[in-house]
Amino acid sequence: MTTPDILLRELDARGILRLTLNDVARRNALSEAMLATLRVAFEEAGSDPAVRVIVLAANGPAFCAGHDLKEMTAGRAGGDGGKTYFAHVMFLCASVMQGIVNCPKPVIAEVTGVATAAGCQLVASCDLAIAADTAKFSTPGVHIGLFCSTPMVALSRNVADKHAMEMLLTGDMTSAVRAAEIGLVNRAVAPEALQDTVIEMACKIASKSSMTLATGKRAYYAQREMTLPEAYEYASGVMVDNMLAQDAREGIGAFIEKRAPEWQDA
Amino acid sequence: MTTPDILLRELDARGILRLTLNDVARRNALSEAMLATLRVAFEEAGSDPAVRVIVLAANGPAFCAGHDLKEMTAGRAGGDGGKTYFAHVMFLCASVMQGIVNCPKPVIAEVTGVATAAGCQLVASCDLAIAADTAKFSTPGVHIGLFCSTPMVALSRNVADKHAMEMLLTGDMTSAVRAAEIGLVNRAVAPEALQDTVIEMACKIASKSSMTLATGKRAYYAQREMTLPEAYEYASGVMVDNMLAQDAREGIGAFIEKRAPEWQDA
Amino acid sequence: MTTPDILLRELDARGILRLTLNDVARRNALSEAMLATLRVAFEEAGSDPAVRVIVLAANGPAFCAGHDLKEMTAGRAGGDGGKTYFAHVMFLCASVMQGIVNCPKPVIAEVTGVATAAGCQLVASCDLAIAADTAKFSTPGVHIGLFCSTPMVALSRNVADKHAMEMLLTGDMTSAVRAAEIGLVNRAVAPEALQDTVIEMACKIASKSSMTLATGKRAYYAQREMTLPEAYEYASGVMVDNMLAQDAREGIGAFIEKRAPEWQDA
Repeated sequence: MTTPDILLRELDARGILRLTLNDVARRNALSEAMLATLRVAFEEAGSDPAVRVIVLAANGPAFCAGHDLKEMTAGRAGGDGGKTYFAHVMFLCASVMQGIVNCPKPVIAEVTGVATAAGCQLVASCDLAIAADTAKFSTPGVHIGLFCSTPMVALSRNVADKHAMEMLLTGDMTSAVRAAEIGLVNRAVAPEALQDTVIEMACKIASKSSMTLATGKRAYYAQREMTLPEAYEYASGVMVDNMLAQDAREGIGAFIEKRAPEWQDA
Repeated sequence: MTTPDILLRELDARGILRLTLNDVARRNALSEAMLATLRVAFEEAGSDPAVRVIVLAANGPAFCAGHDLKEMTAGRAGGDGGKTYFAHVMFLCASVMQGIVNCPKPVIAEVTGVATAAGCQLVASCDLAIAADTAKFSTPGVHIGLFCSTPMVALSRNVADKHAMEMLLTGDMTSAVRAAEIGLVNRAVAPEALQDTVIEMACKIASKSSMTLATGKRAYYAQREMTLPEAYEYASGVMVDNMLAQDAREGIGAFIEKRAPEWQDA
Repeated sequence: MTTPDILLRELDARGILRLTLNDVARRNALSEAMLATLRVAFEEAGSDPAVRVIVLAANGPAFCAGHDLKEMTAGRAGGDGGKTYFAHVMFLCASVMQGIVNCPKPVIAEVTGVATAAGCQLVASCDLAIAADTAKFSTPGVHIGLFCSTPMVALSRNVADKHAMEMLLTGDMTSAVRAAEIGLVNRAVAPEALQDTVIEMACKIASKSSMTLATGKRAYYAQREMTLPEAYEYASGVMVDNMLAQDAREGIGAFIEKRAPEWQDA
């Protein structure tokens, strides 16, 4: 009964799926239940043609507090001191984070409150992020003897080394304005403007061809891992295939004829 | 007759080669002719000892509008729906972009106007870029169903993931001031100060040893693709060879003797 | 007699080791003696349980002027024109820089004055850096025919390509404020606030579990070189091992019980 309620889903007519973390009492911690629910939600959204873009939001003062430390501590009761359990939770968590990166639909984090540890990683793993200027970010594992080693995988792919290291080694909070300066979020806006800013961005993206967005998002993260010559060879092939697709034929034709395009999947 | 005119070349006594995109009617689009001309121009400049630094500028309100969509559309007439033709154009375009990176002479983009799609890629591929603060940048392929998959190879090697993704997924224009903030260009200056700023930078670079610049530029992009231990082993070898070259002997000697150095190729 | 004096060591009761470059007459150049002394100092600090965090500071107006050009020039007298000698010095220098990265203790650069060439590399190689706003940074090798090819290994892992290339190709000085903007240092502060700012940061870090800091620092630089799936698999394993360590058990327990943790090595 409770599992579905910790994540709210709302799909509007424009194809904007709003996923809202809703385990307010636990500060939207990434409990096993939350991780499992998120994994399924992104998988389903990825294959649902009605979904064109995903907004990841949160209810309550915290965006997401990271792993559920009480649940993790209870996991120590296992015969191996918790080793099997921790490996299971870490695998699940890494699956969710990579599931966002691999999801064919663009994902925008709408960050109202505090995003800490794996919660900060969640923001870093989204394609785009807009934060209320009252939001804060941290990777505070050093305070409790548990370095934020998995959060740093996503963090270090968003911000410069010295900025990542400052967050990781001190555990200090980073303001949303600073997070925007260092590249962790795209922009910090007034809290009352947050949702409108996100919806405006989501609407723009939802108006594009889903095939094109999926092609581009997949290619983006793939080419990031390649050398320059490899990346050009790969991306050139992606461009050729994209040119041959109906939506590019339609889009380019519409552009030349100065009319609005009609996408196949719209 | 027309081919030479779409790219103007002017080499001054200081060794500054000014290449000016000059297909104003087509917004300096990267037509087949333009790509072929640019490829040859960078190859020739790379092996011409009289050229010490290259400025890539443009006539007209657009710096470069990217691929020539009418020409691309005409290419669909081929028996395979254009596949062979598109692959040819993409190969040519990737050769030009990598030709800039591999050119032994430093290349500075002087961006007056709008740089879109492969035009934005052209700026990202240059070693340095100075923009008029009226210039604008975008990767608007999503508007026409054709994701900017090759432009993103260069873009994602200049700016943080969230910034690249915002440009790629929304297709929105980025101002020159914002482009400077995110690292796509070195600086945005008043339009009337643009050419002087670029010439000042070009003169500084032209006064250095060409051998040294070529050594360093090649090493820079090579070591970027390596792990830290590999990069140090490689770069240490480059330093040893550089120390043994006449221009380093002369340069270090001149520094110790507090006089101006005389480079071998000056 | 002189060797120990070129690097001062001061370890306080909080575990903050202050290493001060003290070859003021040579602008703290990275002479063979200085490099050898630094290598040993970081090795010893790395294995000394009393050291929890390292501050790298400097006496005199220059933080560090890079290689000792007079010593390098004298090295040309070898039978092979200096090749063996230069290779030895470059190997030693790369060992020091990688020794900082591989040191299990976090290293903070406290930059008072000018940091040039391998001196700039030294700052870039530290985990964190705070600069006086009067400090300056440059990679001026192009002025003397010797491109800063080893400094750029560290520089290009700190700042965006266009920013690195501007420093490398022009040899121009970068102000501390600009260095903070581009990610070369964490922050630029008033000179009179520099030491307090560094001590505050060092104290925060010194209060954490050394085991946790060492685990995290090693994992940070290791995962930076991996693809995303590799990085997640590796970091997940690091997290599981970290969870099983006594300091994480204690830290998480203390957090849940709202008390201060007591680290094993404190």
